[in-house]
Amino acid sequence: MTQIRTARRPALLASAALALVLATTPAMAQEKPEGHGSDPASSYEPSLTTLGQIQAEIPGRKPGDPVMTGPEYQKANTIYFERCAGCHGVLRNGATGKALTVDLTRDVGFEYLRDFITYGSPAGMPNWGTSGEMTEEDVDLMARYLLLDPAPPPEFGMPEMRESWKVLVAPEDRPTEKMNDIDIDNLFSVTLRDAGQIALIDGASYEIKSVIDTGYAVHISRISASGRYLLVIGRDAKINMIDLWMEEPATVAEIKVGSEARSVETSKMKGFEDKYAIAGSYWPPQYVIMDGDTLEPLKIKSTRGMIYDEQVFHPEPRVAAIVSSHFRPEFIVNVKETGKILLVDYSDIQNLKVTEIEAERFLHDGGFDSTKRYFLTAANARGRVAVIDTKEGELTAILETDGETPHPGRGANLDHPVFGPVWATSHLGDDTVALIGTDPVNHPDQAWTVVQQLYALGGGSLFVKSHPTSDHLYVDAPLNPDAEVSGSVAVFKVSELDQEEPEYTVLPIVEWAGITEGQPRVVQGEYNKEGNEVWFSVWNARDLTSAIVVVDDKTLEPKHVIKDERLVTPTGKFNVYNTRADVY
Amino acid sequence: MTQIRTARRPALLASAALALVLATTPAMAQEKPEGHGSDPASSYEPSLTTLGQIQAEIPGRKPGDPVMTGPEYQKANTIYFERCAGCHGVLRNGATGKALTVDLTRDVGFEYLRDFITYGSPAGMPNWGTSGEMTEEDVDLMARYLLLDPAPPPEFGMPEMRESWKVLVAPEDRPTEKMNDIDIDNLFSVTLRDAGQIALIDGASYEIKSVIDTGYAVHISRISASGRYLLVIGRDAKINMIDLWMEEPATVAEIKVGSEARSVETSKMKGFEDKYAIAGSYWPPQYVIMDGDTLEPLKIKSTRGMIYDEQVFHPEPRVAAIVSSHFRPEFIVNVKETGKILLVDYSDIQNLKVTEIEAERFLHDGGFDSTKRYFLTAANARGRVAVIDTKEGELTAILETDGETPHPGRGANLDHPVFGPVWATSHLGDDTVALIGTDPVNHPDQAWTVVQQLYALGGGSLFVKSHPTSDHLYVDAPLNPDAEVSGSVAVFKVSELDQEEPEYTVLPIVEWAGITEGQPRVVQGEYNKEGNEVWFSVWNARDLTSAIVVVDDKTLEPKHVIKDERLVTPTGKFNVYNTRADVY
Repeated sequence: MTQIRTARRPALLASAALALVLATTPAMAQEKPEGHGSDPASSYEPSLTTLGQIQAEIPGRKPGDPVMTGPEYQKANTIYFERCAGCHGVLRNGATGKALTVDLTRDVGFEYLRDFITYGSPAGMPNWGTSGEMTEEDVDLMARYLLLDPAPPPEFGMPEMRESWKVLVAPEDRPTEKMNDIDIDNLFSVTLRDAGQIALIDGASYEIKSVIDTGYAVHISRISASGRYLLVIGRDAKINMIDLWMEEPATVAEIKVGSEARSVETSKMKGFEDKYAIAGSYWPPQYVIMDGDTLEPLKIKSTRGMIYDEQVFHPEPRVAAIVSSHFRPEFIVNVKETGKILLVDYSDIQNLKVTEIEAERFLHDGGFDSTKRYFLTAANARGRVAVIDTKEGELTAILETDGETPHPGRGANLDHPVFGPVWATSHLGDDTVALIGTDPVNHPDQAWTVVQQLYALGGGSLFVKSHPTSDHLYVDAPLNPDAEVSGSVAVFKVSELDQEEPEYTVLPIVEWAGITEGQPRVVQGEYNKEGNEVWFSVWNARDLTSAIVVVDDKTLEPKHVIKDERLVTPTGKFNVYNTRADVY
Repeated sequence: MTQIRTARRPALLASAALALVLATTPAMAQEKPEGHGSDPASSYEPSLTTLGQIQAEIPGRKPGDPVMTGPEYQKANTIYFERCAGCHGVLRNGATGKALTVDLTRDVGFEYLRDFITYGSPAGMPNWGTSGEMTEEDVDLMARYLLLDPAPPPEFGMPEMRESWKVLVAPEDRPTEKMNDIDIDNLFSVTLRDAGQIALIDGASYEIKSVIDTGYAVHISRISASGRYLLVIGRDAKINMIDLWMEEPATVAEIKVGSEARSVETSKMKGFEDKYAIAGSYWPPQYVIMDGDTLEPLKIKSTRGMIYDEQVFHPEPRVAAIVSSHFRPEFIVNVKETGKILLVDYSDIQNLKVTEIEAERFLHDGGFDSTKRYFLTAANARGRVAVIDTKEGELTAILETDGETPHPGRGANLDHPVFGPVWATSHLGDDTVALIGTDPVNHPDQAWTVVQQLYALGGGSLFVKSHPTSDHLYVDAPLNPDAEVSGSVAVFKVSELDQEEPEYTVLPIVEWAGITEGQPRVVQGEYNKEGNEVWFSVWNARDLTSAIVVVDDKTLEPKHVIKDERLVTPTGKFNVYNTRADVY
């Protein structure tokens, strides 16, 4: 089903002498780059100058710069922001993905870039061309775009946040009790990535209860401590706060917290339930603490600063995963590029106390161990996991995962037949799954070491999944270029992990979904509340049919397939109870 | 004695068509402005292009830009850094002084700038031209320079710090007991501003014990908790650590912590004596914690972030005064532009805990009350003083000083005949002295309010001074354009502050020094250890005679004049005991 297209030589080389040239220099939009409240780059207007006017000595224009029109540059900018910046950074300094600064891109050149974008790599670069997610023209455009300097991104402080902030239903106008018959704890919030929506799906009937407009490509859903409010954040940094008590659950408040973001969380400590929300941005590099009822922005804190080990300034330390401590009134904030884990004490936000733990880079995502005391988070560029003791507020350990680019999501907690409680992560860059001991009391020798390495379907894995009541560990591989791999899931039996070489069962999820067009990727298992079903997204291109396949966790047989024309590009799914209680 | 010179019309306007033009655009040195470890701007090399080549559409070049050669720009850059950046900011965004961004400077124009630099203002701008500190050509140069964009300043992280770091005498090679007969506690460390030196002067004999090479324009001296190590920091961010136990006190370690700095301090909490040093920089905006024996840089923390009230990003939040808490293992760090006071917990610098107190801007300098529990610090742009409770680690109060641009130095503590313990600050912008109640237990109604306003000689005051054993309050006015004012000191009797309109005595310090050339400024009273003498600097131009005048605190008569050809541009003086024990 994979489409291989032949990329033709781009037109630009033939017509360079006559074409318009875009002199994209940082200076053009940075004449006053340092003033606070400086001109936002959203007003960035590339000017066009004929080639004859451009001299080599003009800043930003280098010999060999590709030819590009203004509208082309704007379009490429949008695509870069939506598809590439997440891994490669708004400033192109790299993180999960490689750096794409012009010194590097010009070194490899146009054709290399075009082919790489088209075919991807087993190390995690998606095959944007052959998967059909970018047209041949788009790929050509992006390869040219990467040879030019990026446009400077705008700041996004309190004035911009307040302007974007809307309370659609004031707290006093909301219901005082649940007004619907939805079993909220077994509801699934499902990201409809390219539709800019989420679907709320009933965990028992599989019925889509509502589809709600949100930001672009919602990254995660989080539930307030009371279970009432659902918070979702788009990659475009838009947050929707949805009241699940309303007759028809709907957005009651929204805000935009930057140009690009990934994480939202709410305060969970006893006494602070539903009091605050927090969101972390990729750009600008910062986080904001908001009122838990209205999303009113209260306190913004920049993460720009020194890389933990080299101690050189980094201009773009992006905020990755945020979790909420169960032991202290603290948010635990992962900062990617500086490799720091921040313990943000929300008990007094006027006198904000932040403990900055030197960990490792690039911090990405992670989750709690089964006791919720320890937070394990992947430092993916260095193949490591950092462990934080959220009760004591300090670093417990940093360990190698023995795999390439760990990507745990929240990870999975298993009761290993030999090593007791372990936490699992798979890897973007290879087929390994690392099982890490998490029980320093009864298994001190294994604590915070890789006790076992499993081999699953292949590289390009994003998520592992298990449940306290389950004997299974599911491992996906949605970013693997091989359609058969990206369309399946591997399942290990936890009780058989005492074997020398544990085997896994392959679940052909795409086949079960009955989808034959495109290269749908199977992504992110999520349990229902009871823990007896696990749901997988079958994520196809926007104009093709997607689905959710529900697997019986006991029999590993397909139990139901959710197909609906509203189910456009489903990716992450968040069961309300499991998300709220950090059960994984 | 003031010289008024006639500023002639600059040559540039006549010869513009033929002159070389410097296209100073941020882009030239910012082609890769955002990469960590990006090219330091120290390698910034302005290129020269003939006027005919410059088109209006070239970034950074605007119609009306003045004409300037490369060497002229470099010279102006150096002068700006040495004389102007302290008040106006490396990025020219303003702080104590006005913003000097090109939108503003081009609005007022060349002649206005030239005259303002020449004559100064009573609000605190020095009269650089008429004081003789800049030649007419320098003033002309600076007025033209201000019409151009500034060169981007370089980052200065751990690699640069470590490269600059030198241990000249290792701790194990230093004496284990004091090897000289100096009465260290009554030694004065005197800044020889333009010589890039300090003089160590014996408090009893007035003898210059040594002159030690340091950074440029040493801003302050601080003494380690044990009294052994003297730390001085230049405006060029160079720190010298001088061992006062050596037979001949000398620098045993040195480091450069940035391009521009003001503050250094050492850990004073019980159990941490002499363990750490800290320095704060103006550029880059950051502070660094160093080993207290060797100045080895251990931890750098950026201060770039949000302004406390508007919550918009500021790229240059400079670190002003730092003091060391006597109640907790914390440094108290004033950040000017963001208006935040940081409590930096040095008990575990790998897991650095910082409490960020929202205060006011622009935080500058301050000192403790007489109990050393409360830290009072001026937010000079808003005419306020913020009070921090260093025992509880929180903001106690913010109050108006009812004067323009308070500049307390460390302030002065008095036992007021009516209001009990008060803390005093004078003002850069007017002749007022504010007395602020500091006794919430016995005088709760007066605590953290201005209980009395005194009127001294005039605007341009930098320092007030008193001593626990003294009945006097001294107020200088070194930046006043009037030579008679800047050459004198006002003295109030503390016991007479119960009068309706307290009068002051004028001490004609310059006259007592017998200096008739230049416009020497009388600056910064400092007591000897016993508290019975006050020393004032008579700070003249570099090539003219300066002096220190020692005043008998009981009689207010001159007791001694220190003149020595080595005493070049003396400014700040720091008595070892009073500085170490925070007696003021």
